[in-house]
Amino acid sequence: MPASSATAGSRTWPVNAWYVAARSGELSDQPLGRTICGERLVLFRGEGGAVSALEDFCPHRGAPLSLGFLKHGRLTCGYHGLSVDGQGKPCAMPGQTVGGFPAVRAYSVVERYGFIWVWPGRADLADPDALPKLFWADDPDWAYGGGLYHIACDYRLMVDNLMDLTHETYVHANSIGQKEIDEAPVETLLDGEEVVTRRFMEKVSAPPFWRAALGGAGLPENELVDRWQICRFSLPSHVMIEVGVALAGRGGYEADHADKVSSIVVDFITPETETSHWYFWGMARNFAAGNVALTESIREGQGKIFSEDLEMLERQQLNLSTYPDRRLMTLNIDAGGAQSRARIQRAIRAEP
Amino acid sequence: MPASSATAGSRTWPVNAWYVAARSGELSDQPLGRTICGERLVLFRGEGGAVSALEDFCPHRGAPLSLGFLKHGRLTCGYHGLSVDGQGKPCAMPGQTVGGFPAVRAYSVVERYGFIWVWPGRADLADPDALPKLFWADDPDWAYGGGLYHIACDYRLMVDNLMDLTHETYVHANSIGQKEIDEAPVETLLDGEEVVTRRFMEKVSAPPFWRAALGGAGLPENELVDRWQICRFSLPSHVMIEVGVALAGRGGYEADHADKVSSIVVDFITPETETSHWYFWGMARNFAAGNVALTESIREGQGKIFSEDLEMLERQQLNLSTYPDRRLMTLNIDAGGAQSRARIQRAIRAEP
Amino acid sequence: MPASSATAGSRTWPVNAWYVAARSGELSDQPLGRTICGERLVLFRGEGGAVSALEDFCPHRGAPLSLGFLKHGRLTCGYHGLSVDGQGKPCAMPGQTVGGFPAVRAYSVVERYGFIWVWPGRADLADPDALPKLFWADDPDWAYGGGLYHIACDYRLMVDNLMDLTHETYVHANSIGQKEIDEAPVETLLDGEEVVTRRFMEKVSAPPFWRAALGGAGLPENELVDRWQICRFSLPSHVMIEVGVALAGRGGYEADHADKVSSIVVDFITPETETSHWYFWGMARNFAAGNVALTESIREGQGKIFSEDLEMLERQQLNLSTYPDRRLMTLNIDAGGAQSRARIQRAIRAEP
Repeated sequence: MPASSATAGSRTWPVNAWYVAARSGELSDQPLGRTICGERLVLFRGEGGAVSALEDFCPHRGAPLSLGFLKHGRLTCGYHGLSVDGQGKPCAMPGQTVGGFPAVRAYSVVERYGFIWVWPGRADLADPDALPKLFWADDPDWAYGGGLYHIACDYRLMVDNLMDLTHETYVHANSIGQKEIDEAPVETLLDGEEVVTRRFMEKVSAPPFWRAALGGAGLPENELVDRWQICRFSLPSHVMIEVGVALAGRGGYEADHADKVSSIVVDFITPETETSHWYFWGMARNFAAGNVALTESIREGQGKIFSEDLEMLERQQLNLSTYPDRRLMTLNIDAGGAQSRARIQRAIRAEP
Repeated sequence: MPASSATAGSRTWPVNAWYVAARSGELSDQPLGRTICGERLVLFRGEGGAVSALEDFCPHRGAPLSLGFLKHGRLTCGYHGLSVDGQGKPCAMPGQTVGGFPAVRAYSVVERYGFIWVWPGRADLADPDALPKLFWADDPDWAYGGGLYHIACDYRLMVDNLMDLTHETYVHANSIGQKEIDEAPVETLLDGEEVVTRRFMEKVSAPPFWRAALGGAGLPENELVDRWQICRFSLPSHVMIEVGVALAGRGGYEADHADKVSSIVVDFITPETETSHWYFWGMARNFAAGNVALTESIREGQGKIFSEDLEMLERQQLNLSTYPDRRLMTLNIDAGGAQSRARIQRAIRAEP
Repeated sequence: MPASSATAGSRTWPVNAWYVAARSGELSDQPLGRTICGERLVLFRGEGGAVSALEDFCPHRGAPLSLGFLKHGRLTCGYHGLSVDGQGKPCAMPGQTVGGFPAVRAYSVVERYGFIWVWPGRADLADPDALPKLFWADDPDWAYGGGLYHIACDYRLMVDNLMDLTHETYVHANSIGQKEIDEAPVETLLDGEEVVTRRFMEKVSAPPFWRAALGGAGLPENELVDRWQICRFSLPSHVMIEVGVALAGRGGYEADHADKVSSIVVDFITPETETSHWYFWGMARNFAAGNVALTESIREGQGKIFSEDLEMLERQQLNLSTYPDRRLMTLNIDAGGAQSRARIQRAIRAEP
């Protein structure tokens, strides 16, 4: 019985959903082994570059297929040479007739927006139309840069983290944090399929990250600004955060494009095990989109900032694993995380 | 239910007792996370420098408070900014009314003799008068130097180790060991609250450590000496060892101060988990007390000697964990450890 | 109850058999701790150089005897000085009468052919005549070189590996692999106590390893050759592989000594735990036997080639541990491994 067929009660993630398993650039001419949602996968590009996701387990002797190699669009096991196609069907093995060989389990997979999306659950339910729409991904007015972290904590602790940005004041005090964040009232609401939590700050000084962004966009760096953060959670575990600052008094979030800098923090949070996950982080922006050096500089800065969360999250996990029955508090600032977890829980229960 | 409330049967240490949790110098302007007796603690100095010990678990979301910071004598969680006072009472959190917040568990704690003492058990039973009296700690005629080791074995293996110094002949052959130790008869007796095991050697040559001490005290290094070792165990797990050499025939332990060098090996052995402990080692001496360089040189030498026990103890633990039901031998040389363990066992059983 | 007395059903190896525990050269004037077949052993040379194997557990306080030292042919515990003889009998301890001390468990052990062989099971069944005969080990016309790897997988995965050399085509593509291996038919047969699996290739080009060997023997390196591989498994887990190439058309395996180069790949595979083993690998050859530099060069090359299997085997183990109930395939190429495992299984069941 594959791990994904475990009873829903024992799982902490829905399986009939699209998860980011890799960035497109991670797949070249070598197979890539990666565990997502408890499933050990091998990802690779077959003929014409189409991506496949198979169980990373050769039916012959259990060797990991990810140690194999690609030839003519087929994945060949590096131990004894069984080769399979993108659907996991055995094609050839030296000296063998493979007609009766069992197939390798194949997962539904789609490459879109620069990411490889995998559906760990029932293949017959996998619908590419259910993929999130990332309007900025194919728009030349927008630029994107991002990275990947492996973090040893329950993926839902990262959802909590991103749906409550008051932590910026403490964890990211030197870059994007400022005391006005946790002083501004936070509002959480349900918007169709999304959980939204948002905060607006008026007439504040811009923190270092945003001063640099203002400068990069040709705006004055040291004037007061209106600042906003609008976090949007959607199933199974994506968090898009609209963030930005406008010169104070020009309309804030609604200000004219010329008076503000804004971007979308892009977070795909993919469970690996019950206590670890893959964190695909990035930023999409619609200012200076053609400035590749700026993209790289923002990517580097964001990577540094987001790495500040790692120790906190991993040690929070240690504490929660030590005291699993301890009740935590749910404050107004936690409503975004709590509502998101409720959505996740409902999705798990509703699975066929 | 806090770990310390576990039934006595499953614990290997008493909890209603004072344990050394840190050296005073370890606490400056940062909180310190440390597990003792299975309790995950954060230690810090509040207003006026008074030391507090709280559970290292923020009641908000379970973050470790030891990753936070100190401000105005309060400990602020580094994740979302809840700050608590030295008794664990929530004081403030941006945008929140903390009146109804649960308190963080506080432990009884006393700073004395250069150490931070924690009482992991019931706070209402914690009595500062029950702290051991260390007469040398505040006496200007005495000097002290010491250090801390983390050792992956049951703390009682260290008690055994220190209550039977025949091991010096083997483990510390090049510094304080000599064949006369395990040839001299050992005597074990109960002295009030203490278990005492002692050994006297007459007309022996001084081993390297003691030759250096004789030299440091201005005595001849190469004459024969009378040597003694008097180990005193007291609950919960302190071992003070009077050690010294006198020029042979001058009265040994009772010799005139001018004819001997002596000191007290100071050992506070604090359980961390069932199979690991914190070993606070040191030496107090009443010769050349003002010689800071000598203090440092002894500290360094002792640190090197005591580190020789680590591999033996940790691999002994591995053996005992592999064969938990194997019966060991209890010889006359083991009587000190055996009596000490009996005291520990009785103390555990007697706990309320 | 010693681990070796566990019911046969829970063990994956026979215990009443000779296993290689060390190479002779590993034992000098220090004891050596090593776990084989789940037994924690200390190996050492006693008086006159005779080898002993005892349980690595001092009966006094459970210290590992392998941290001790040798004196007058006795092993002395490095903690409190109990010394035992090669049969595990306590001989002396300072200040103690050891007459009533329990003995350390001793294992039957033989040194032969440059290896230390241990019988982990019942000593009364240990018969030195049951040791394998290694005719080449004492023959001056033969040279041997080898090494030792610790591999984190079930020892039977290594038996499978060596009893099916088609993996050379994939794992060792750059040294001894060639496509003709997995194209040549393989034959598996039972030959008395041995499982034999063999393969003959005619008129193939010699792969790099064999070209070098031809050169080393003064034969042309670039001519077509006939090649053979004859793998012989014998209980409990030894695999000897006759390998070689002859200039094409000179009779192959039966060719005149002047027209071929051949050798025996020597593999002793000793379980450590259920999921790890010691792999004693080497090669015995009867060409240029006096060429020490060639021995070393072959040893180095073989070490490099055999290290290519490690990652595959250890990750195969991870896959099998994750999916313990998954059925694997048994093809004709796997018959050698399957028959060998059947022999092992039968031997375990037949144990007294």
